Order: sequence, then structure tokens, then C-alpha cells
Amino acid sequence: MSKQRLSRKFWNPIVKNLSPYTPGEQPLNNDYIKLNTNENPTGPSPQVKAAIIATLKNKGSVLRLYPEAENENLKKSIAQSLNIGVNQIFIGNGSDEVLAFCFQALFAGRGTLALPEITYSFYPSLARLFEIEMKLIALANDFTFNLNDLGSNIKSVIFANPNATTGIAMKKKYIQDFLIKNPNLLTIVDEAYVDFGAQTCVPLVKKFKNILVTQTFSKSRGLAGMRLGFAVGDINLIAALNRVKNSFNTYPVDRLASAAGIASLNDKEWFNLNKKMIIENRQFLIEKLSSLGFKVLPSCGNFVLTSHLQINAVKIFKHLKENKILVRYFENSKIKNWIRISIGTKKECITLLKNLESIVNKL
Amino acid sequence: MSKQRLSRKFWNPIVKNLSPYTPGEQPLNNDYIKLNTNENPTGPSPQVKAAIIATLKNKGSVLRLYPEAENENLKKSIAQSLNIGVNQIFIGNGSDEVLAFCFQALFAGRGTLALPEITYSFYPSLARLFEIEMKLIALANDFTFNLNDLGSNIKSVIFANPNATTGIAMKKKYIQDFLIKNPNLLTIVDEAYVDFGAQTCVPLVKKFKNILVTQTFSKSRGLAGMRLGFAVGDINLIAALNRVKNSFNTYPVDRLASAAGIASLNDKEWFNLNKKMIIENRQFLIEKLSSLGFKVLPSCGNFVLTSHLQINAVKIFKHLKENKILVRYFENSKIKNWIRISIGTKKECITLLKNLESIVNKL
Repeated sequence: MSKQRLSRKFWNPIVKNLSPYTPGEQPLNNDYIKLNTNENPTGPSPQVKAAIIATLKNKGSVLRLYPEAENENLKKSIAQSLNIGVNQIFIGNGSDEVLAFCFQALFAGRGTLALPEITYSFYPSLARLFEIEMKLIALANDFTFNLNDLGSNIKSVIFANPNATTGIAMKKKYIQDFLIKNPNLLTIVDEAYVDFGAQTCVPLVKKFKNILVTQTFSKSRGLAGMRLGFAVGDINLIAALNRVKNSFNTYPVDRLASAAGIASLNDKEWFNLNKKMIIENRQFLIEKLSSLGFKVLPSCGNFVLTSHLQINAVKIFKHLKENKILVRYFENSKIKNWIRISIGTKKECITLLKNLESIVNKL
Repeated sequence: MSKQRLSRKFWNPIVKNLSPYTPGEQPLNNDYIKLNTNENPTGPSPQVKAAIIATLKNKGSVLRLYPEAENENLKKSIAQSLNIGVNQIFIGNGSDEVLAFCFQALFAGRGTLALPEITYSFYPSLARLFEIEMKLIALANDFTFNLNDLGSNIKSVIFANPNATTGIAMKKKYIQDFLIKNPNLLTIVDEAYVDFGAQTCVPLVKKFKNILVTQTFSKSRGLAGMRLGFAVGDINLIAALNRVKNSFNTYPVDRLASAAGIASLNDKEWFNLNKKMIIENRQFLIEKLSSLGFKVLPSCGNFVLTSHLQINAVKIFKHLKENKILVRYFENSKIKNWIRISIGTKKECITLLKNLESIVNKL
């Protein structure tokens, strides 16, 4: 298809200019150690599988019935878990869909959106889809960025905290000060990785009307395969998301995903143990990488961004892939000599390190 | 929330003018006979549950991994089932999502869209979301509509076949003639209900570049709770849908939904038996309703649109609801004295008829 010139006769003109997001490779077999898409190395709480099977075996067949459009039960679980109101929650088919509705309902048609030059690379795809003008916030040499230097005429800002790709987190207090200083600017904080050691801004949504926080079940809850994410914010923001969602797809979250989400939130013990394991493995990996001559950014995510002082990142990426280990390389000049490695099990970290050692030893 | 005036400070101006789709009521308990949202009365093939459980018990935890973004395996199953190419298929999170991508990628930014004045009421919601000008095609007294009378300046047309709400189907030959006469007009045929007795236009997508057909797993495959739908069409149309989808939400179809879809397509015996049962129950219901003094439109769907010659539709709707039977009433002047009844099991049809008889007997 790539060789044939496509007929664009029936395309919305906007579609011609899209450059869709390229996700990390998802091989069809299990031959690889997958450290390329920040998935959870162990999978979800065992209670999730039990809840899905119980739902399937429920009296009558629940699969034949449309889901309950407002996902009230899952909302109640999230509300309880985060100590916020049910009416401050919006649920979607993965936090990617939640973000898409945010861009459409709250960024589009309102002027310029600011975002860090290095962040989740899905944001620019969404901005192009909804024709939102972007202003990139430059990163300092240490890969941090300054919110107090946005310039004029910015209507909204989005960033991941911890930031995607780098893993660097901002303090809640810093973000709170920004919200106070910018009451007419909408801030969206994408907390996909917050559970691995950053401070959540969820408590701020009770006090401030200009912040929305998104979270996902794909990372710290090990449910990437189920597609579940949510936003929390002021009811005026949630109302806009609901209007768009109910004009787009009434039931984006299926019955088994809802059951999985509730079971996941109930198993706090699994959640805490899994989180602790990943943070310990991250610490272990950072120390070993440093001893092999890698620079590693201070990560609060379930991944590290790293660069070797003497070996080219593409060479490392290819060597690892040949040895059945997938990591992520981004075509971006700012990080062109860096690779991002997801935190796997201890065993996976050790296998990775052995492979890296063999490259370093050839120097 | 409805009493409080919402602050629209951060809303995209478009959101202010949306009037989202109102789905049929989905009660949280099982007290009702649900004949209001055209769900399948028996639920999916038993092989679906087996496939979901097998997926959950798969080596390693597949739930921790993102779905394969292109859903290749499910596409292969659909391609085989419909005898079309894998590259002519687009899969989404319910056919509502597929339709949303169609409106965004293929209708928006291109001029006026024609649609029947009575049809799936989600289309106008989508048109408003994507700012598409609509021209309504008037229905004749017998509730049919004429495609050869669209007027000038129409760029696209969408209709359900069989038509939603009425159940009336058009012949494939009639649609084919329309495609030949209108090569510069894009036609989308929503075949959500096609399996219950209408002619599918899927074979036309091999010959014509100006037609896209959508189908769903929610009706004839009993999987409304899982959210799975697809479109088939020329590769140039599929390419536009993929561009939008990959700019919006990379993985809308979760791993269990894919497994469910494949298992459903494999069980042809269940599919044919279930379809036969629903068509027989429809025939039974139409005959009995007629003998009670109801007009019934000639339906090719898993529902009938019906009106009593002497009793007001709202009165019937309320009486049935009081007696724990949900049917659908639409606030639309053209069908203000009609109710839509989904085809249930034989037992449910009999209970419904007994309740209707008791109203009629009071005359």
C-alpha cells in the first residue's frame, strides 16, 4: 500500500496532513523481552482474572447487553480510591482516548496549546487531528522544563508528570503555584506514570477549576491489554468531556474492562507490592547502568532514559534487538543518542545488563 | 448538576452546541424484559466465553501487553468470513466508533451529508460534533426513502440498511445502481442489522470505490457488551480511517474483544441457528401484533416498529414499563405514535403480547 499512491478524493482535507502516532513494536510472538512500551512486567492483580471470569459466568449473559453508559460502578471505585467525587470522574477506553476527548473538548477552538518539546509523542498527533496550534516548551540541558516561561497568548498546557520519555517529575507544589498564577489557562497533567514515585495532582482538582488530571490502568495496574483510563477534574471540565464522548461513542468501555478495573482497584496489596518491586528494579538498573558508563536520567516512571558516553544509541538498540530484547528508540534530534528502557522483572533486568555488558566490553 | 449553570470557560465553542445521543435505558438490575436496545436475546456463541477464558489463561499474562495495534488476527477472520481482502477492513471499538471515524475522516470538511429523516439517531450527533452540514431525505408515507432524489451539492450519504427504527431494507441492486450513477458521492451503508434478512452490500466494495459498509458484533453476534465493529471498503477509504484512528487512539480494541470476535466468527452453526430463531420470533410477533390491531412495518431487523390504530404509543410504552417490559419510544414527530420493540426470546415475545392484549382488551 505504501508504494501505491492513494486516492484522496473522499478524504477530509485535514486527514492529508496527519502524521499518526507510531506506537512501540508489539511482536506477535513471545520471543522477545519487551522493554519498549512501558508495560507492567508481571501483569495485573490475580483478582482481575477472577473478576472477569465471574462476570462471564454471571446469571444470564452480560456480554449480550450494552455496557452501562456512565460506568457508575467503576466511577464509584475510582472515587473511593482517590477520595474525590463521582461527578469529578470521566472514564475512557485507555487514557489515550481520554486525552483525545480532552484535546477535542477543551483544547480545540481555543487557541495555542503549550507542551514540552520532549514528552508523550501522541500529543502532537492529537493536536494535528484537532487543528490545535502548538507551542513547544524548550527543555533545559538537564531535560527539565520551566512552566513559568510559556510566553503570552497560551490558552492551555499539557505535560506528563513524571514526563514521558525522560521520567523526570515535578513537585505538586510547583504545579499548584502555576495554577494559582494562571487561572485563565487550562492545565492538563497526564499522570500515566505517577504511581512509580511522583506526587499526584489529584488533590488539586478539588481546589482548582483550571486543572484536569489523567491516569491509566495500563502501567501501574498492568492492564494495557484491556484499555482503561480516566480523567479527574472540576465538574465543568468533566461535563465537556461527557458531551463529546456521548456525541462520539456512547459505550467506549466494555463490560469486562469495567469489571477488571474495579477488581484492580480493590487489590491494594498487589498494587503496593508490584510498585515496590518496579521501583527496586529501577534503582538496581540505574546503578548497574551507571557502572557500565551510561548516563541515566533520574526517573520516577517505570522506565529509564539512558545514553552511553561512548556507544551510539542506535547501535545499542540494534544489538539488543538481535539478542531478542526490545527497547525504544525515538527519532528526535534532542534524544537521538538515548534509548528508553522499560523496567522489567529482576531477571529481565539482569539479562538486559548482560547484553549491554557484552557491548561495553568490546570497547 | 443539571440545575447548576455550567462554566464553559474552557470549552471548545463547538461543545456548547452539541446535543449528544441518548441511548436506550440500561437498567442496573435484571428486573426488566429488555426489548429497547435491539440486543440479542440469547447472548453470544458459547465459544466466545471459552475463547476469553483461554486468552486469560494463556502463557504469561496477555492483559499486561498492549493489544496488537492493527488487530491482524481478527482482520483475517473477518476477511475470510466476508471473502474480502484484509486491507479492506477497519476495526473499531463498536460500530459507533467506526462511524465516528467515518464522519471525521470522510464526511467532515467535504460539504453536505444526506441522511434519511428517520434513521439511527446517532448520525446527527456525529454530524454536529464534526460540524457537517446535513440534508434530511424525506420519508414517504410507507417509511421508505428514495436515493435518486437527493438534490444537488450532496457530497456524501449515509443510511442504515435495513434502516434503523423502521427495519425496512433496500435491495443491493438499488444501491448498486445509485453507486454507478454517483461516482463522486461517497455512500456509507450501516449494516448493523443486515444479518436478519437484508442483502449485504459487502460484495460491492470490491467493485466500487465510493462505498463503505459498516457492521457490528453487537446484534446478530450478541456481543453488545464487548464493543466490536468494523468497516469494509476500498483501500483508499480504509487508509483515511487508519490515519484518523492512529491519531486518536492507537489501540481501541482490547485483547479480549479481539479473541471474542474471532471465536464468534468461527461458530457459524450458532450464528445461523440464532439468526433463524430471531427471524421466526419476528414473524410470530408481527402476526400476533397485527391480530391485536397493530400496524407493523415490514422489518428486516431484530426489531419491529409498530403503532396501534386506537391506542397512543406513549400510553403503551408506559404500561409496558410499569409491567417491567422496556421498549423504545422516540421523541420525533414523524414516529410519535410508534414504538420500537426488539425481538426477544419466544417466551419474552409471549409475555409482551399478553401485556399488550390486556391493554387492547380494555378498549
